[in-house]
Amino acid sequence: MVIHARGMSQKSPLSPTSRTTIRRGSKRGITDRDVLLDILADGMVAHVGVATSTHPSVLPMAYGVDQEGPDRDGTLYLHGSVANRMLTEAFASPVCVTVTHLDGLVAARSGFHHSMNYRSAVVIGLPRLVTSDSERARSLDLLVDQMIPGRSASLRPPTRRELAATMVLAVPLHEASVKARAGGPVDEPDDAATGMWAGHVPVRLGAHAPVTDEFSTEPVPTDVEDRARQLGHDSAPE
Amino acid sequence: MVIHARGMSQKSPLSPTSRTTIRRGSKRGITDRDVLLDILADGMVAHVGVATSTHPSVLPMAYGVDQEGPDRDGTLYLHGSVANRMLTEAFASPVCVTVTHLDGLVAARSGFHHSMNYRSAVVIGLPRLVTSDSERARSLDLLVDQMIPGRSASLRPPTRRELAATMVLAVPLHEASVKARAGGPVDEPDDAATGMWAGHVPVRLGAHAPVTDEFSTEPVPTDVEDRARQLGHDSAPE
Repeated sequence: MVIHARGMSQKSPLSPTSRTTIRRGSKRGITDRDVLLDILADGMVAHVGVATSTHPSVLPMAYGVDQEGPDRDGTLYLHGSVANRMLTEAFASPVCVTVTHLDGLVAARSGFHHSMNYRSAVVIGLPRLVTSDSERARSLDLLVDQMIPGRSASLRPPTRRELAATMVLAVPLHEASVKARAGGPVDEPDDAATGMWAGHVPVRLGAHAPVTDEFSTEPVPTDVEDRARQLGHDSAPE
Repeated sequence: MVIHARGMSQKSPLSPTSRTTIRRGSKRGITDRDVLLDILADGMVAHVGVATSTHPSVLPMAYGVDQEGPDRDGTLYLHGSVANRMLTEAFASPVCVTVTHLDGLVAARSGFHHSMNYRSAVVIGLPRLVTSDSERARSLDLLVDQMIPGRSASLRPPTRRELAATMVLAVPLHEASVKARAGGPVDEPDDAATGMWAGHVPVRLGAHAPVTDEFSTEPVPTDVEDRARQLGHDSAPE
């Protein structure tokens, strides 16, 4: 298992409601809140689902997490333009926020047992429009730091115009489930007995060297360098 | 732009309906069906949204694509256990299937202009339960080959029991939109003038060497080796 819990948790168990209780593949369900936080910490893109009047809509969005956020069990933040139709529609009806990491391709000896290794977190909640200046400022920093840890500290504060153009929604981390698969294929005994090759190909998101834009006179800062290195880029930045 | 169209398309334009017409950030909308097919071809995991009676549900799923599929403009296939509640609920109401590739982290000189480079495809459609034996067989091959191209040809056919346990849904590729961002940050002129570093960190999914399971007596087959190499693993398999 590639998942490491951070230690003892004092928080609520996951899946407090029937709709986040895993029914299919319950062997792959994990009920540890720290695992949820780890999966969210490792990600940069969430797939956010909203039910419109005629169809479900799923869009990729950046997110930020405040483990000690004001909502029960912590807070996940989404943001976007105040003109964003999806965010406006999401407000006041439940959203589903899913973060998935693909960890491996599982090549079995039958099509039926082909699979993928992954970790995924599903959070369902009623979003709250963030209105307090201090929570808005903190949430926008968390959104930046989710992508490049520590970066918000090196940036100028947002302008009044930028803040006015930005909508922030908070989703409580209370109602959530996590699911994961790791390791090699699980084949039928008859198929395994053939000796045919089977196994898995580990995959992960990797970075190339940072690309500097034409207005930069300063060198690549350590926050960006560290993030690229943490994502596997280990030579000097260009 | 990292997207390459495959040439002239004779198919329908994208966004034939108002719900897949991009309103926000329309500069980032792309209306070329070949770009849709390229984004889908590059992916392995889709985030599938279903509207249940009380909330939207978004789950990661494998998928397969038949560009010449029986549905208008081609077919996307989803599969799962016949006991999968989500698939059962999805049948006969619209689903949203979203495939996203994260291509880069865009580090601007303000939090407001931080962004990500990505390509995403959103398909909305009423799923059709696949019942014909030939379409089911072909769709299951496509699902395997989406993960490891060519692999289905080296596998035994599914057993009657495996087929009975598997449900396949077909989603027409007719109603879809694609969106992408590429390149460096777009900063405020005053911020760019400071000379502070800004740029982007290209990212992509990468593979490690294939891991052989304990029952294998044969070497890593070329389909698996080729897939690992195509995903960036360039040394000999373990």
